[in-house]
Amino acid sequence: MKLKPTTRQEYAYFETMTTRWRDNDVYGHMNNVVYYEYVDTLVNSWIIKTGALELPGGPIIGLVVETKCTYFSEVGFPGNLSAGLRVNQIGKSSIQYEVGLFFNQGAESAARILFTHVCVDARSRKSVKIPDTLLRALKAITSI
Amino acid sequence: MKLKPTTRQEYAYFETMTTRWRDNDVYGHMNNVVYYEYVDTLVNSWIIKTGALELPGGPIIGLVVETKCTYFSEVGFPGNLSAGLRVNQIGKSSIQYEVGLFFNQGAESAARILFTHVCVDARSRKSVKIPDTLLRALKAITSI
Amino acid sequence: MKLKPTTRQEYAYFETMTTRWRDNDVYGHMNNVVYYEYVDTLVNSWIIKTGALELPGGPIIGLVVETKCTYFSEVGFPGNLSAGLRVNQIGKSSIQYEVGLFFNQGAESAARILFTHVCVDARSRKSVKIPDTLLRALKAITSI
Amino acid sequence: MKLKPTTRQEYAYFETMTTRWRDNDVYGHMNNVVYYEYVDTLVNSWIIKTGALELPGGPIIGLVVETKCTYFSEVGFPGNLSAGLRVNQIGKSSIQYEVGLFFNQGAESAARILFTHVCVDARSRKSVKIPDTLLRALKAITSI
Repeated sequence: MKLKPTTRQEYAYFETMTTRWRDNDVYGHMNNVVYYEYVDTLVNSWIIKTGALELPGGPIIGLVVETKCTYFSEVGFPGNLSAGLRVNQIGKSSIQYEVGLFFNQGAESAARILFTHVCVDARSRKSVKIPDTLLRALKAITSI
Repeated sequence: MKLKPTTRQEYAYFETMTTRWRDNDVYGHMNNVVYYEYVDTLVNSWIIKTGALELPGGPIIGLVVETKCTYFSEVGFPGNLSAGLRVNQIGKSSIQYEVGLFFNQGAESAARILFTHVCVDARSRKSVKIPDTLLRALKAITSI
Repeated sequence: MKLKPTTRQEYAYFETMTTRWRDNDVYGHMNNVVYYEYVDTLVNSWIIKTGALELPGGPIIGLVVETKCTYFSEVGFPGNLSAGLRVNQIGKSSIQYEVGLFFNQGAESAARILFTHVCVDARSRKSVKIPDTLLRALKAITSI
Repeated sequence: MKLKPTTRQEYAYFETMTTRWRDNDVYGHMNNVVYYEYVDTLVNSWIIKTGALELPGGPIIGLVVETKCTYFSEVGFPGNLSAGLRVNQIGKSSIQYEVGLFFNQGAESAARILFTHVCVDARSRKSVKIPDTLLRALKAITSI
């Protein structure tokens, strides 16, 4: 069950991000690690913009428990990445986000990343129920 | 089928790596992205040390097609990470490595990472059979 | 002779770049190291866009021999950085660029970075005269 | 007044750090930005080990106001960097550290980095006098 490239229509929220010289490794393309920097940025930016959680410094934070990236085609500096966000699964305290990364004007995603957050108490790091404010925001970007 | 922490005995090759101030994010622990930097480093270091591939600059390189990390416990600066390597699967041209990251003297892995390489021609980036030199080296660290 | 913040008018070429979650360290602001990632990106992007050097892969590359950053105010994720470029000094083979980083709508630079390139032969890494194509491009952004 | 490479004898405190695959850029050597990651790590590690400041989370932190790196020779993955620390200047609230980076068994530094901290109140970010605990530790590594 190999994942296939997605289209932009399959994501609900987008941000465009600029690549950096340092994103490229010795092979002249974006290093596999760096893709995840865009994902972390997108998820947190979306949370901050919706106001669903007060990040950082609020009482509840999202702790990353699993990430996975499937790479379809090479990207890198120079160029931009459009990062599309959707929610695949919502549990009691966990959320699986999916991010599709589109290079420049590309119609198909160059990579798809699954990113699972567990809501935890910022101090004890124990899991808590997803707050209602976040739940409402998540439902608006949940894939059908 | 959730992955569970592993022990050091489950890996065949180890390197110890130093953490950096910048590995930690605003939550005071290693950012989820950074874990993958250790993995990339370990796999490439092992390949270079065995002499199985001439990296970089040789005719065949390993292209990363999928990576996945399951995070069990927090790590970060200051401290060291012992990274253990084994091979889970070998295909015609693809190799799935697994890396376990152990923080300081920890007996259980703080994270497990799956890392899939496809051997490709360095110029055309088309997949090729795993070279015999690499195949022999891989078999020595394949999990039983 | 302490450097002071500059204004946007003092730079000749601009690019706007997006910050990332990982740019911030445990203090909640952009780590001092990361500022240099924007500088490296700006200088190389400008060289590529002007077509003054074929990067990477051309016969001549810019080798960094000295960098310096003076930090005036805190920046970080979320937000954008406008990076302004000018040339302060041109030698036989060396170029001192200056980059001013402006956070969001800020009128004064949050940091000023000096960045010295020496033109070298890509293979031997020996210094060579600045190529005419690059020299012409540099003069257009040299501070008066 | 160009800086010249230093020897190990000119530094008072050392740590050895491991390089990473991602440290290298498309030219196959350590990217100029990454050198600073080792410096930040060394200074903070030394402060934590001496117990001179409680980092992070204590009432006083070191805010970086200026950094400068002079690059003498290429380094990179694979390999280790020995980072040597000394103090060049101590003011009322500011400290100029110098770090020399030595690649593998190299006798001469591959780079020298100046790194200026100002002690500030962690909340207000206003400068404060260097605490006595830190002052004593600094004097022990001040260059003669």
